[in-house]
Amino acid sequence: MKYSAKVEVKFKEGLFDPEGETTKKSLQGLRFPVEDAKLSKVFNIKLDAKTKDEAYSMVEEMCKKLLANPNKDDYKIIIEEIQ
Amino acid sequence: MKYSAKVEVKFKEGLFDPEGETTKKSLQGLRFPVEDAKLSKVFNIKLDAKTKDEAYSMVEEMCKKLLANPNKDDYKIIIEEIQ
Repeated sequence: MKYSAKVEVKFKEGLFDPEGETTKKSLQGLRFPVEDAKLSKVFNIKLDAKTKDEAYSMVEEMCKKLLANPNKDDYKIIIEEIQ
Repeated sequence: MKYSAKVEVKFKEGLFDPEGETTKKSLQGLRFPVEDAKLSKVFNIKLDAKTKDEAYSMVEEMCKKLLANPNKDDYKIIIEEIQ
């Protein structure tokens, strides 16, 4: 089966997000009534797996091994079947 | 009213996504059965607006003026009321 995984990686709560901060200031400079802006990365991954659970476990493993930095990032995984 | 906007900015279909490509190759190098990987940015923005429609229009304006590059990016906006 083919699955599509959406992995959102963002700074852990409380950590400084420099690009988000710059975005907030730039938007405020353009006179938008913005209170806060945070930036995250989203990986859209297509993968093969036998079941949705297996797909989830593999993507969790990918986060641990490559996609997220355990010292500073939180991540959220959403898996959907495709085909 | 306060609104939360999630803006996903990604390369237009067909454009080369170098970071996505590197991610795909790295995951394949780690023996994950990955067929494709694409990367997008997500801005999570808190803003003030009178209505949901007004919030949407403002965020669309932000995309045009700052968040997305019209030459290479597509964007998707999701607005939710908060409080």
